[in-house]
Amino acid sequence: MRELTEQDIDYISVGASVLGSGGGGDPKVGRLLAKSMIQKYGPVNLISIDELQDDQYVVPVSGMGAPTVSLEKLPSEIELTNPLQELERAFGKKADVIIPIEVGGINSLYPVGAAAKLHLPILDADAIGRAFPEAQMETFHLHGLEPEQVAVGDEKGNVALLKPIDAYWSEYMSRALTVQMGGSASVSDYFLAGKDVKGSVVNGTLSLAREIGEILMHQEDYDDVFKALLDRLNGFELYDGKVTAVTRETKQGFNFGTAQIEGLNNYRGKTFNLEFQNETLVAKEGDEILATVPDLIVALDIESAFPITSERLQYGSRVKVVSFPCDPQWRTPIGIETAGPRYFGYDVDYLPVEELQGKEK
Amino acid sequence: MRELTEQDIDYISVGASVLGSGGGGDPKVGRLLAKSMIQKYGPVNLISIDELQDDQYVVPVSGMGAPTVSLEKLPSEIELTNPLQELERAFGKKADVIIPIEVGGINSLYPVGAAAKLHLPILDADAIGRAFPEAQMETFHLHGLEPEQVAVGDEKGNVALLKPIDAYWSEYMSRALTVQMGGSASVSDYFLAGKDVKGSVVNGTLSLAREIGEILMHQEDYDDVFKALLDRLNGFELYDGKVTAVTRETKQGFNFGTAQIEGLNNYRGKTFNLEFQNETLVAKEGDEILATVPDLIVALDIESAFPITSERLQYGSRVKVVSFPCDPQWRTPIGIETAGPRYFGYDVDYLPVEELQGKEK
Repeated sequence: MRELTEQDIDYISVGASVLGSGGGGDPKVGRLLAKSMIQKYGPVNLISIDELQDDQYVVPVSGMGAPTVSLEKLPSEIELTNPLQELERAFGKKADVIIPIEVGGINSLYPVGAAAKLHLPILDADAIGRAFPEAQMETFHLHGLEPEQVAVGDEKGNVALLKPIDAYWSEYMSRALTVQMGGSASVSDYFLAGKDVKGSVVNGTLSLAREIGEILMHQEDYDDVFKALLDRLNGFELYDGKVTAVTRETKQGFNFGTAQIEGLNNYRGKTFNLEFQNETLVAKEGDEILATVPDLIVALDIESAFPITSERLQYGSRVKVVSFPCDPQWRTPIGIETAGPRYFGYDVDYLPVEELQGKEK
Repeated sequence: MRELTEQDIDYISVGASVLGSGGGGDPKVGRLLAKSMIQKYGPVNLISIDELQDDQYVVPVSGMGAPTVSLEKLPSEIELTNPLQELERAFGKKADVIIPIEVGGINSLYPVGAAAKLHLPILDADAIGRAFPEAQMETFHLHGLEPEQVAVGDEKGNVALLKPIDAYWSEYMSRALTVQMGGSASVSDYFLAGKDVKGSVVNGTLSLAREIGEILMHQEDYDDVFKALLDRLNGFELYDGKVTAVTRETKQGFNFGTAQIEGLNNYRGKTFNLEFQNETLVAKEGDEILATVPDLIVALDIESAFPITSERLQYGSRVKVVSFPCDPQWRTPIGIETAGPRYFGYDVDYLPVEELQGKEK
């Protein structure tokens, strides 16, 4: 167990923008929120999965909605903690530990804000190992843990307690309410005993985000940063390029869109595409697939090596597009069914980025 | 207290199509449902407000959604009773009596289906005295009774327990879920003690619907039927006409639309409009308003005197358009604010149909 410092939060914020850099909400929102809540309510302890006791109750707190909305609409305190407290009432038990549902984007630090207010520790783990756009895309679901009761709350004080028939209906119902609530809302979708959490999450991911953030913020030579990132995450450089067109649409509570990218440096003369639904789903050169979900695809600023999230990509952005292998839990049949390319409407089989890039690391 | 017979149900079904004939769902759906549930589970007793005890708990059961959807998607048993049972759990009490939320359209008999299954009596009253399209448009709201907890369920078994900040958010959240659930869902939005129900509902409305149904089904001379209806409901004939155009759109869980009607008989040479959001909101001749919500506006088939609901109006329909005064509770300042023409976006003050028609009855 250790207390999260301001520097930890800065690092995690930056690292999370790599792990959810297809989108997942602007991590700056999470950083701002976490810091202000810690200032107001006191520090938050990070505990490792080994410190988690079997009979402790673990509850996720996350923001749902289209990331472009979150930039303008900061979560309120009431929104942040109402869903968790609603679940406590529904289950008749108290939460002991808060867990991020995803380590990418805003949701790495959003739950730290709730943890500060409720004086609870936060678990050094998450239920994705990156960010994904839909609520059923959680490792809990891959292990047969379905959301029994799901609480959704907004900044006005509205709360809904959902009892969905499965993880997909958890997504459909939460999303409908989120859209109605103004495009962003707070969600707590599980109430799990520590023993069920062990083995059904991705471990150490807040520490990983911190480590990646530190790499990004302390390297002087950008080539070194790219190399250090690829090394740490076993990733691949897909190409360098300049964004020549972006289409983007907010609908059904998501940001959908495509970025067209003309190759630079060694990739001059080639045309690439990134397609996203909050998160980048597919990287292509013409019709050839370079990488797909569930592997992570990230556009890094070619100058600073900082990621540019899908909602920030714009005409003229000069990017190095890289891909990192997802957690092995996502490469199982149910993992690929849940978050592979076919789920998102692409008529292709999932191939790990290592195979698509023709080399094993 | 008396047992509802098959004939009662036929009459109520027909009468309800007059009291919600702007829309409110096809009453045939309610009739079919009520009869099949009574056949399966046994009879339902109708009790009067005088028979209701102060400490009995009264719970509404209603169908929500766009009426055109309900024609194809009959409510399932699980959908019918899940929301009420969810409220019983949430309040930790058992329901004693079921009440229709509105007497118009499908929702006069929809709750009879639930009453049969749960072996509960149904109250001879409702919370509108006609049909209205939105959930906050209930007499409970006019009397300061706000929905504390609202349950919404679908035929798949999904259930949501909402805790809205006010009656409007009850509508917004229920509607968002209803749309997501396929366009129709079942809702129980109050859990009230008998003493609170007395004085905050419209009394005797199932009996009234029965009476109107009997008038419609047993008169031989159609002129007599029109006259008997107008007499019984203190109504006014607005015009006779033929529908020459209908625009209709299902969006946000409602049927929106306009019918253009060319005058017939004494009204030849004049052009009229009906505008509806599930229920008919306004009847106009050119720009002149003939009647508006909260008064009831109904298009009756000129041949049979049976009402033609807004979702059934079509090119060539020959109609007599009539208007009936609403319950006095809707003519208070909060009643007009809640369901008057300005709420629906019309820049006109509400005038009772008696005044618009230039005569007092």
